[in-house]
Amino acid sequence: MNQHAIFHEPDSNYCYPFNKRGMTLRLRVSTFDTFDFIKVKYGEKYTFHLKQEEIEMQLQYQDDLYSYYEVHIQLEDVRFVYVFLLGYENQVYYYSEDGVTNEYDFTTAYYNCFQYPFINEVDIPKMIPWMQSAVFYEIFVDRFYRADEKKDISYINMAWKDIPKPKSFAGGDLRGILHKLDYLQNLGINVLYLTPIFSSISNHKYDIDDYFKIDPQFGDGQTFKELVVQAHKKGIRVVLDAVFNHTSNLISQFKDVVEHGSNSRYYHWFMIHGETVDLEKGNYETFSNCFYHPKLNTSNPEVQAFLIEVGKYYIQEYDIDGWRLDVADELSHDFWRIFRKEIKSLKEDCLLVGENWHNSFPFLRGDQFDSIMNYSFTKAVLDYLAYQKMDAKKVAHRLNAILMRNNDIVNNMMLNLLDSHDTNRFYTETSKDIDKLLCALAIQFIFKGVPGLYYGIEVPTEGGYDPDNRRCMDWDKVEEQGAYFKILQKLINLRKTEKILAAGKIKITACHHLLTIERYIEEEHTSIFLYVNAHSENVYYENEITPLLSHRFENNLFLKNSFLIEKVKK
Amino acid sequence: MNQHAIFHEPDSNYCYPFNKRGMTLRLRVSTFDTFDFIKVKYGEKYTFHLKQEEIEMQLQYQDDLYSYYEVHIQLEDVRFVYVFLLGYENQVYYYSEDGVTNEYDFTTAYYNCFQYPFINEVDIPKMIPWMQSAVFYEIFVDRFYRADEKKDISYINMAWKDIPKPKSFAGGDLRGILHKLDYLQNLGINVLYLTPIFSSISNHKYDIDDYFKIDPQFGDGQTFKELVVQAHKKGIRVVLDAVFNHTSNLISQFKDVVEHGSNSRYYHWFMIHGETVDLEKGNYETFSNCFYHPKLNTSNPEVQAFLIEVGKYYIQEYDIDGWRLDVADELSHDFWRIFRKEIKSLKEDCLLVGENWHNSFPFLRGDQFDSIMNYSFTKAVLDYLAYQKMDAKKVAHRLNAILMRNNDIVNNMMLNLLDSHDTNRFYTETSKDIDKLLCALAIQFIFKGVPGLYYGIEVPTEGGYDPDNRRCMDWDKVEEQGAYFKILQKLINLRKTEKILAAGKIKITACHHLLTIERYIEEEHTSIFLYVNAHSENVYYENEITPLLSHRFENNLFLKNSFLIEKVKK
Repeated sequence: MNQHAIFHEPDSNYCYPFNKRGMTLRLRVSTFDTFDFIKVKYGEKYTFHLKQEEIEMQLQYQDDLYSYYEVHIQLEDVRFVYVFLLGYENQVYYYSEDGVTNEYDFTTAYYNCFQYPFINEVDIPKMIPWMQSAVFYEIFVDRFYRADEKKDISYINMAWKDIPKPKSFAGGDLRGILHKLDYLQNLGINVLYLTPIFSSISNHKYDIDDYFKIDPQFGDGQTFKELVVQAHKKGIRVVLDAVFNHTSNLISQFKDVVEHGSNSRYYHWFMIHGETVDLEKGNYETFSNCFYHPKLNTSNPEVQAFLIEVGKYYIQEYDIDGWRLDVADELSHDFWRIFRKEIKSLKEDCLLVGENWHNSFPFLRGDQFDSIMNYSFTKAVLDYLAYQKMDAKKVAHRLNAILMRNNDIVNNMMLNLLDSHDTNRFYTETSKDIDKLLCALAIQFIFKGVPGLYYGIEVPTEGGYDPDNRRCMDWDKVEEQGAYFKILQKLINLRKTEKILAAGKIKITACHHLLTIERYIEEEHTSIFLYVNAHSENVYYENEITPLLSHRFENNLFLKNSFLIEKVKK
Repeated sequence: MNQHAIFHEPDSNYCYPFNKRGMTLRLRVSTFDTFDFIKVKYGEKYTFHLKQEEIEMQLQYQDDLYSYYEVHIQLEDVRFVYVFLLGYENQVYYYSEDGVTNEYDFTTAYYNCFQYPFINEVDIPKMIPWMQSAVFYEIFVDRFYRADEKKDISYINMAWKDIPKPKSFAGGDLRGILHKLDYLQNLGINVLYLTPIFSSISNHKYDIDDYFKIDPQFGDGQTFKELVVQAHKKGIRVVLDAVFNHTSNLISQFKDVVEHGSNSRYYHWFMIHGETVDLEKGNYETFSNCFYHPKLNTSNPEVQAFLIEVGKYYIQEYDIDGWRLDVADELSHDFWRIFRKEIKSLKEDCLLVGENWHNSFPFLRGDQFDSIMNYSFTKAVLDYLAYQKMDAKKVAHRLNAILMRNNDIVNNMMLNLLDSHDTNRFYTETSKDIDKLLCALAIQFIFKGVPGLYYGIEVPTEGGYDPDNRRCMDWDKVEEQGAYFKILQKLINLRKTEKILAAGKIKITACHHLLTIERYIEEEHTSIFLYVNAHSENVYYENEITPLLSHRFENNLFLKNSFLIEKVKK
């Protein structure tokens, strides 16, 4: 037994309550070890030495190195203590806080058993109900559609079909989105995520100079209110982009500091190294080393109150449904805890999605964000389909490893992306291979979590790195709505209507070059399977099938870059 | 290379800021693997693809399975990203979020490097300055000393020298402690931790019926105030016991619920299963299944406000220095976060010590407790010295493993116990072997963290399980102050005066049956070594020595159950 591989941590992604009397446990072991059984011996904290229950764990996930066993336990008493029993080569081993041992003394278990001491309701991770069937659609507002006839258009400096430059303005606006709501409803998406809409001199508006003002290039409060109302009528939710890490250098508070230095009443809103601001030397903390992105001092209670006011204002005034939190990992845990409480007390099902590109478990313990933009998923699918750096087995392992970073409630709310305004377009990364893109979309829609589309993917749109990934929506191409568009529509529809995709468990494996993702609900004896073939050889599939959807799967043969989704009663 | 053994987790005990521009990193590998080197390649988040620094990690801790490498890095830019470089059998491997790989592409590091995105000051773990040289002394108030001449003594039902029964009252009181302050100062301790002093019908008073009233058996507010003032004058701090998990069934709020059921305005202060309380069936959540310990509903904001008021009141009114938090792990993280903020805003260096018997990392991330009662340490020393279940090597490994559960700031504040009112007396567990007890004390005082003595150990006092572990202080034996007492006094003095023991690093190893604990400050080129021989054979020690303190170490020979503490200039 490779004891070095064995891992469990109480009160973590390896041990968490799924409801008031239910605990999920996971145990990690080496995937090269074969166990006779893996069980949990558990009980109530104060009687564990006298009475223990036993339950077997099931192998649920596997990656390159590890197998992950899982079990869900319903408890009578929520003062939960436990040790693991490992059956290995006809011996029984115990795994406790003291590691793997041949014997275990239950009379002194109070010293070294694992425990989840009490399920307190407030600490239970919570699913936002509407996220179960959510499909996101990100809009870079300046590039989507222009419909505001009344606004001053003198700022527009590119033709709609031009390739954008860093400082291009194309003229897209909120009325444009409003105008296209029917189109979006027909496409099937049900959550709009808009990049920042607040006053700013840039086209992307990630450098905000007035958080309480909607940029006149995009519209006004009235138009935004109308957009949210009309979207809600169509069952579409609206998520805005909260840029709280930094502001524009043109925000009044920073300008006041530039003018008055340490005498400014806003001096401590930023982090200035010195008595006065030196814009040329940039003697202050910034975002990404840009002098025009001064970083906010979010440890300052005044700044916290200001940002919380912003966060609440757009809920109270416009009834938005969530915030995507820009550069969220550079703010303190403390701030996000405060922010979450304030927001959730106003609107319990308001979504908070962090922009964290990495393993973000410390932010996803239930006290900060609900979800993150899941760029680890992006990378795995890119490496599998666009770059062929991973085969089916490797990507299955990688996807399992990603799922093991967080609890299952968080996994169900992960915003799984193929691309965004911060990456090259997935389509471009595949060298414009529509088959690969469709395989990627199939994975995105069948995987656990919430699919996030980047506007234009339905065409699909090309685009390299910023600003090329922010081209204007090609509405002529949209008109066509060919086979590709229709498959995407079907995927969206499947995701919204199949309960299994909303709440089912997941098993990801590889078999005969096929990446296989099974989603299932045990009690309903039904599974949805996705098979993807990204291999250069065709793969014959001998079973009889009843496809929900397929692409390049013909006569039981998976061609290169094909997929099949089928539903199976067991 | 045993890749299964390799482990690192950002923003955890493996990666934390030690000050505004300093990061500590740890990496775990198999202790059976030999590496050519282990390095960190690090940089600033937005320029990492262009520029990386390198620093070598040092082997710092080892347990049965793992070696732990550590490094402390001073940063220019606090947006910290990194990967590990592993030199193994003349190959270089990379370790990132994607695991161990042969190659690493720094141009896409933003997807999968490790990161600590920004050091926010509020998230930096903080040392309470006075804890650096603290030596705790726990007093079970009813059994320490009686000096209040005016109180009603009709409740006293045992003679001072009797063996106590569960419902015995011996008469100890606050004035008794006040009376013995000179004695305590002479012993050398500088923190008093008192078991609960609030109104309660029991001798232990863990079932409180009025949190704002000091039990008349123990004294009154005036006496307690005098005790704190006089203790402070002698440099002794006072920590009280906060029993917030549960109350007595006799507290007015619970009695109101018993009387009025769900119509009581306190109904939601507890967790009653039904409309009315059934005391016989105990149809409500309790502590440890005792009907007279109803559990408080600490998710109720009213209850939270009440407990916070209690927590603040004894600071404001009596200037206490800390709270020991009873059964702290059965309350929510959310409650403790709120409580901590309220208490720390009132008195920044007020200590919060949880009663958590297990690995408590989720409570010790800096947002909840400062420390816990470290019963894992207790068990390790018991297994080594009292029960001989572990040899020097095993206990060295166990102690290292315990240190690896938390960051070093927390380790420096851990309350390391040999025994308490909740365990058998250590002395009794050794079958009254004074040599073993002295070895245990030496380990306790040289180990990282704060030694916690249980009243009477200086005699030493015998005692099996509760109530036997709560015998009255034997003041006749105290009078003698023999050799044992004097060694303990010297240990206390060493702990308070040696800067190395307050702030030094630690290395724990085993060599020739000797458990060896080195504490050192690199910059000062000085180490303090503790050697303990618990082996049945004598051990010859060939070096020339300059002992600070020793026991049963003669002519360079460690007898059985001996120790030596020496200070070495390097």
